[in-house]
Amino acid sequence: MNSFGKLFRISIFGESHGPVVGCVIDGCPAGVSLSEEDMLYDLSKRKSGAKGTTPRQEDDIPEILTGVFDGKTTGAPITIQFRNNNTKSKDYTQFIDMPRPGHADFVAQRKYNGMSDPRGGGHFSGRLTLAIVAAGVVAKKLMPAVSVKAELTTLGGQTNIEEALDKAIKAGDSIGGTIECKVDGLSVGLGEPFFDSVESVISHGVFSIPGIKGIEFGNGFKVAELTGSKNNDLIVDADGHTSTNNCGGVNGGITNGNQLFFKVAVKPTASISLPQMTFNFEKGKIEELRIEGRHDLAFALRVPVVIEAMTAIVLADLVSVNKK
Amino acid sequence: MNSFGKLFRISIFGESHGPVVGCVIDGCPAGVSLSEEDMLYDLSKRKSGAKGTTPRQEDDIPEILTGVFDGKTTGAPITIQFRNNNTKSKDYTQFIDMPRPGHADFVAQRKYNGMSDPRGGGHFSGRLTLAIVAAGVVAKKLMPAVSVKAELTTLGGQTNIEEALDKAIKAGDSIGGTIECKVDGLSVGLGEPFFDSVESVISHGVFSIPGIKGIEFGNGFKVAELTGSKNNDLIVDADGHTSTNNCGGVNGGITNGNQLFFKVAVKPTASISLPQMTFNFEKGKIEELRIEGRHDLAFALRVPVVIEAMTAIVLADLVSVNKK
Amino acid sequence: MNSFGKLFRISIFGESHGPVVGCVIDGCPAGVSLSEEDMLYDLSKRKSGAKGTTPRQEDDIPEILTGVFDGKTTGAPITIQFRNNNTKSKDYTQFIDMPRPGHADFVAQRKYNGMSDPRGGGHFSGRLTLAIVAAGVVAKKLMPAVSVKAELTTLGGQTNIEEALDKAIKAGDSIGGTIECKVDGLSVGLGEPFFDSVESVISHGVFSIPGIKGIEFGNGFKVAELTGSKNNDLIVDADGHTSTNNCGGVNGGITNGNQLFFKVAVKPTASISLPQMTFNFEKGKIEELRIEGRHDLAFALRVPVVIEAMTAIVLADLVSVNKK
Amino acid sequence: MNSFGKLFRISIFGESHGPVVGCVIDGCPAGVSLSEEDMLYDLSKRKSGAKGTTPRQEDDIPEILTGVFDGKTTGAPITIQFRNNNTKSKDYTQFIDMPRPGHADFVAQRKYNGMSDPRGGGHFSGRLTLAIVAAGVVAKKLMPAVSVKAELTTLGGQTNIEEALDKAIKAGDSIGGTIECKVDGLSVGLGEPFFDSVESVISHGVFSIPGIKGIEFGNGFKVAELTGSKNNDLIVDADGHTSTNNCGGVNGGITNGNQLFFKVAVKPTASISLPQMTFNFEKGKIEELRIEGRHDLAFALRVPVVIEAMTAIVLADLVSVNKK
Repeated sequence: MNSFGKLFRISIFGESHGPVVGCVIDGCPAGVSLSEEDMLYDLSKRKSGAKGTTPRQEDDIPEILTGVFDGKTTGAPITIQFRNNNTKSKDYTQFIDMPRPGHADFVAQRKYNGMSDPRGGGHFSGRLTLAIVAAGVVAKKLMPAVSVKAELTTLGGQTNIEEALDKAIKAGDSIGGTIECKVDGLSVGLGEPFFDSVESVISHGVFSIPGIKGIEFGNGFKVAELTGSKNNDLIVDADGHTSTNNCGGVNGGITNGNQLFFKVAVKPTASISLPQMTFNFEKGKIEELRIEGRHDLAFALRVPVVIEAMTAIVLADLVSVNKK
Repeated sequence: MNSFGKLFRISIFGESHGPVVGCVIDGCPAGVSLSEEDMLYDLSKRKSGAKGTTPRQEDDIPEILTGVFDGKTTGAPITIQFRNNNTKSKDYTQFIDMPRPGHADFVAQRKYNGMSDPRGGGHFSGRLTLAIVAAGVVAKKLMPAVSVKAELTTLGGQTNIEEALDKAIKAGDSIGGTIECKVDGLSVGLGEPFFDSVESVISHGVFSIPGIKGIEFGNGFKVAELTGSKNNDLIVDADGHTSTNNCGGVNGGITNGNQLFFKVAVKPTASISLPQMTFNFEKGKIEELRIEGRHDLAFALRVPVVIEAMTAIVLADLVSVNKK
Repeated sequence: MNSFGKLFRISIFGESHGPVVGCVIDGCPAGVSLSEEDMLYDLSKRKSGAKGTTPRQEDDIPEILTGVFDGKTTGAPITIQFRNNNTKSKDYTQFIDMPRPGHADFVAQRKYNGMSDPRGGGHFSGRLTLAIVAAGVVAKKLMPAVSVKAELTTLGGQTNIEEALDKAIKAGDSIGGTIECKVDGLSVGLGEPFFDSVESVISHGVFSIPGIKGIEFGNGFKVAELTGSKNNDLIVDADGHTSTNNCGGVNGGITNGNQLFFKVAVKPTASISLPQMTFNFEKGKIEELRIEGRHDLAFALRVPVVIEAMTAIVLADLVSVNKK
Repeated sequence: MNSFGKLFRISIFGESHGPVVGCVIDGCPAGVSLSEEDMLYDLSKRKSGAKGTTPRQEDDIPEILTGVFDGKTTGAPITIQFRNNNTKSKDYTQFIDMPRPGHADFVAQRKYNGMSDPRGGGHFSGRLTLAIVAAGVVAKKLMPAVSVKAELTTLGGQTNIEEALDKAIKAGDSIGGTIECKVDGLSVGLGEPFFDSVESVISHGVFSIPGIKGIEFGNGFKVAELTGSKNNDLIVDADGHTSTNNCGGVNGGITNGNQLFFKVAVKPTASISLPQMTFNFEKGKIEELRIEGRHDLAFALRVPVVIEAMTAIVLADLVSVNKK
């Protein structure tokens, strides 16, 4: 389904080449100052146009349609919409016969009995993350003492982002990357021992973002190689601060007051300009496919602010539940 | 909270040293044959007693109290309970003053205002995974054509499990490991594009298991170093089979009919027999702590069947929702 | 919160005098033909303008913004919006100081710390039922074999609706009414024994409609005066048809294949042109209030199609869940 | 499904003639003093044995199995169980062929494909309300300033309960009744404008109780005959107190600080000793049925405390959500 959260809850809607994408935010308390301007900075960080991103340029202008009165949230659902202007829906029907490798074309076709909107990925499009970024701005406002920062740390396997990009452009092939997210200022006690552990709900949110294939908290996969004496974090003061942060700020599923730290892997853009083989469902045989159109070479570049937004959304909900 | 799932839904309860641990399973269809015996094999795979596991030996005898009549599920909630017999609750109160490194002692204390049951980890105990394994047996029965297999692939950073164990025993220090899970026989179309992507719900479930610190699907973190032309899986037939399975069987959040594949990282047991430093909250200073008692040296050994169970629970729910 | 349903799920948003009201429908299967035209008939039944209804005239033109492609639902969320055109927001701030009797002015003020949109009732407005009617059209389409019919049976305590209206107009005072809803074509087995009994979920939905103060199924309150031998419905054939329908088509919380029948009570419009006393919060004393503006004399006239819509929404969800 | 609530959440399980009935309560804060003794008074009010109730006598002894340590709730799920001792499951299979009028026999048979436990009504039994009463005790403890009182006001259509009972006993026929519930001490602001209006969630809970066929708030069905000037409640002071309470303490779906008041209709017990006709599914024709066994003549007598419990459960959840 397309909703997420228990008390601070977002629902997203829209298609890449339909009239709008947007979200409804339910459970936002009354009295939070909120305007379209508040969203522009985060939205700009998701924008395309820079080297390595798609040349499709959208205005990405948010419109707050409901839930705000006199510049303040009212407690009623907040609807935020973005119009799609720069759409070019020439020939996506070809991907019904010849599904693009790495894309959702095939599964969408099957899941929705051939009825899903194929234009620009339809509802599967990364464009929906626009709504997530907007909702993330609201979530961040609910936690003024909390800082959520995500950053691209490697691209194409190297830490020199610029160089990796140039290499990819030259090769005409897409590349992936890794993103680190650090959250400071969380109180002790968010999350639950089992099904709503902090790792559970953060990962639930983060894997909702198209193209994420891995997540690890604290030492992550490295823990598998460590001994307990090396991996345990020693508590050093009455606030629960620890000498190391191998656990990434979470014990027993619950925030321990240290920095929440996790890392995610973003796959290379599935759409590439190089020719690829795929199955032609009409002809019943494997054929070469060439994907035209405008695509990100490394959409990982645009994902950090989406990770931030999703993290803030999850945390705002955990904070709401924790107040009970 | 302690419930999970939309239509096939489990709730777990109990404490390590209380009278019982168990679960209620709601949404199981009527007419599934189910007995305590059905659970014994999976429960045995989680059992302690082998080299590297805790010497605390429990009978782990499941009792089906409700929801089954004449050997078949009735459609009413299924309650399964395990009595705790072999409990030794000598002196857990010390961990209130001196929280064990890597444990939930500190966060539990804070989150529940000092009221949580400290004996054997209370409700935070890995013993609760007993209930998850039992529920997993029911989930597996709902998908007879699906095979869910998890296996420990590395321990203490090496693939020779036996050798790693011996080394750890000698060092008196705990070790972590990695587990791979492979699911065959899934139909195309499970999962949703965003918030209920297969990766989202699987990871939500898997991070509910104590001690998991990372998860990756298909190529996982390796995708961050790959190009699109290498990472994309090429469809080769009308069923959607692909030449490679770099995506781990999921496109756009939805199963594509290939093997669902993911890998998780399990941390070393937090309780170790070596002395560790921690903060003494009563005295207000750092002191040495020695943890007595019976503990796993490598609880990763017992986790694979728990991963299987949780995966089956998540998938049974996705299958139920997909029938709508 | 502003969402409802498990698998067929609607979220509503908007304010009476804001730019839009609308809904997002999640969980609608792909392939259902749907257009704005499909909604016009039901929307017309909710329209104002007739005798006894408010002179505020709105176009009530639905716009389907997402989830429909080439005239068919795609399986993605369906967003339907209505622009508010004919708004006159002169002076609603007076109701902050002097809350209108029978209205939500006072509770809204308190619940949202004075931040709720006061114009035309804001998010509390009956105008939100426009979105419910639109969603109801979609729900009805999902159950082509099911007929949901609601009808005003009494107004101001009498069955002659016309006469009651004339009397009310003459008195310048508002009146309430009763509505009966009959659903034919339901299969046996919808609903659950306890918390999701058919009566539970129908009443949950129906009491979401502003102004409903009572609901009864089958014989309703009359059962309190009957003996079991009179109230029991006798099964007369292998399909479970009964000689009488005193239970309103529900046994043990579950549809029995006979007509689902219930009755609701609608209160008189709270806004009346007669002077009323209320507390003046600024002055700290009771004063006379006169409510200007455009209001329904008997909004019960416009409620039947809203009852139909809500009933269809609930049933479409029960049908979805039952397919599991 | 068999769970209810958002943050304060109960799940019920068990069958009338199985080993246990009980509930799991999730979301109860830590630190609430709780013992089995606390439950005995409310449980005694539900007990059978008095005139007009079933001669089946059960001990109804609650056992708190989890979630309480040293006499206080721990924040973990609370499991409460009752063993069924006095069960006589002679011949319930006859009701599969010949469903009892007014019972769930037929729908249970159909919904669960003949697999539901038929003994004593199985999971459909009113015995499950034992678990609701126990959970209600916990809910009441969470709201020490709130008083929830329900009382049988009519039986068999008359206010003289004793006389009505004698008449029914003489006639050998069951009778129904009405119950009024009054809640004092609620703060202003519980509930939501639409889908989680106080009336919505209370009625959802109340119709979960077997045998309830109607509910009305405040003036209830009488509003349909009133004018606005008569039905509106006039606010008389700065706390929002009103001169009358025709709305039953709820405006716009939200508590207004006055007494929450509602009334429900309880049907006569379906099981009667008089002979009744029903369809014999084996023989394919209508035949006479005689119901042996032990039954309430007027189970309405035992329902008030169940109404109280369910109301407290709903309100405890609303209070939890409202703290967000």
